[in-house]
Amino acid sequence: MWFDHLSVLFDMGGTVSFAVSGALAAINRRLDPFGVIVIAFVTAVGGGTLRDVLLGDTPVGWMRYEGITLLIVLTATVTMFMKRYVERLRITLLLFDSLGLGFFTTIGIEKGMAYGLHPGICIALGTMTGCFGGVIRDVLLNDVPVIFQRELYASVCIMGGLLYYLLKSVAVLAPVAGILTIVFILTVRLLAVRYKLALPKWYV
Amino acid sequence: MWFDHLSVLFDMGGTVSFAVSGALAAINRRLDPFGVIVIAFVTAVGGGTLRDVLLGDTPVGWMRYEGITLLIVLTATVTMFMKRYVERLRITLLLFDSLGLGFFTTIGIEKGMAYGLHPGICIALGTMTGCFGGVIRDVLLNDVPVIFQRELYASVCIMGGLLYYLLKSVAVLAPVAGILTIVFILTVRLLAVRYKLALPKWYV
Amino acid sequence: MWFDHLSVLFDMGGTVSFAVSGALAAINRRLDPFGVIVIAFVTAVGGGTLRDVLLGDTPVGWMRYEGITLLIVLTATVTMFMKRYVERLRITLLLFDSLGLGFFTTIGIEKGMAYGLHPGICIALGTMTGCFGGVIRDVLLNDVPVIFQRELYASVCIMGGLLYYLLKSVAVLAPVAGILTIVFILTVRLLAVRYKLALPKWYV
Repeated sequence: MWFDHLSVLFDMGGTVSFAVSGALAAINRRLDPFGVIVIAFVTAVGGGTLRDVLLGDTPVGWMRYEGITLLIVLTATVTMFMKRYVERLRITLLLFDSLGLGFFTTIGIEKGMAYGLHPGICIALGTMTGCFGGVIRDVLLNDVPVIFQRELYASVCIMGGLLYYLLKSVAVLAPVAGILTIVFILTVRLLAVRYKLALPKWYV
Repeated sequence: MWFDHLSVLFDMGGTVSFAVSGALAAINRRLDPFGVIVIAFVTAVGGGTLRDVLLGDTPVGWMRYEGITLLIVLTATVTMFMKRYVERLRITLLLFDSLGLGFFTTIGIEKGMAYGLHPGICIALGTMTGCFGGVIRDVLLNDVPVIFQRELYASVCIMGGLLYYLLKSVAVLAPVAGILTIVFILTVRLLAVRYKLALPKWYV
Repeated sequence: MWFDHLSVLFDMGGTVSFAVSGALAAINRRLDPFGVIVIAFVTAVGGGTLRDVLLGDTPVGWMRYEGITLLIVLTATVTMFMKRYVERLRITLLLFDSLGLGFFTTIGIEKGMAYGLHPGICIALGTMTGCFGGVIRDVLLNDVPVIFQRELYASVCIMGGLLYYLLKSVAVLAPVAGILTIVFILTVRLLAVRYKLALPKWYV
């Protein structure tokens, strides 16, 4: 019962996080209001849409629950009026982007498990769910995709996915495992950016 | 009866418009003949393919009606032989791109309604149907996506979608509403480019 | 019987080829180990995933056969340890990319035929299957897509597809036709790059 509520909360959290992240990136590139809403929308639903399309769960999620679209439009509009944060765009963008990453990675893995897929596939699915929204945002704005930047990104999703599996295999409840995973992904990503942490690249 | 014929005409109009737009952009970037055909094809079917995939209506449209592929190959080939227009590429490109935008936005909304989706979702679907062909063309040619440029683009789709809904809600016949919407999108986009119209960006 | 084995071999050949091609491109752009694995994965499964999604054959292939993911992770890891090839990246990248192109074009056409699609559609499907993995790799790494470069690329797929059809229409066995097509695509692409062969562009 409260499981489902938490799951909805996770989905809303990821949606708002990525919508803010998309809207800020679009504002930063001086798109007009409708353009800001479109980029916020694509960023927020991109990962989940890819997940649903790959699983064949269509019409995809945001088509069936119109509340998601409303939430994104509201979030993007509110973001456009929050001028006082414009100066701190980089930190805010990073924070929301990392939060969305955590939310959606967890949701993606959980849905893969509901389809009875192999653990490795679930982690791959979670990573694509988490990363694709940001990637499509960057591609549409013609930025270098965040996934390509020096700091940990896809790596954090994969490590977060492994943690989620580890926690559930030692019988930690799904919502607790989810929250721990989100905190883990957020923390590691922020630390990675702050201290310029990176995995060794022995092959370069 | 004549509704269906007009719908097919709309689809062909959008396909030809976007195929020309894609072929011209590819010619402009000096791709070889097969490359021109590939870009024309992706530009023309990109939006409808995304729409069908998101709705789960597979195999997607162009796979079931091979005439569409033939039409695109013919259009791209004819475009390659129309040397006399090479000097006027920018205006022609803009005109065909705007026409395709109008055709496909209308078709996308109509198909969303056939699936019984919420009006807001239908407009979002129409916008994605209209914009995605051009976006994928720009991404493949490594241009800055048109959606990101200063003039109205996605905005025009959304406004056109709202108009289409308004017209149908006051009992205007579908084909009439469609033609008015296409004319509206074409006019607004051309005016926007000509007079550099843009929505206010109070948040910049 | 041995047909199916050869088909699996083709699929594995294409997967390994594209995984190596993706891993090398990612190493070249100094991504971290997980980033290398992600790009290898997307490059290898991108084409087949697009094919399955467009056909509505979901959950897509790599979700049902977890061995593919394992194969890609292993290939990417081995590639990362093959330091001695780093100096010859360009030739190796080209070779593996061309091989993957041949494998996947053939598989794409074959699957389109299994769905009873029109020959022209099958060739289009094969071309998209072959090209999309490399395109998504280039887009994610913010390179100019290979499809856009001067040498033959999509053209080779389309010509290879026509050859495959021609061979099968004169009753050549599927695996023989497949091997001939792969050799044809590999040879033409390597010759095209070596001698800067290109189709005439009368419209430029």
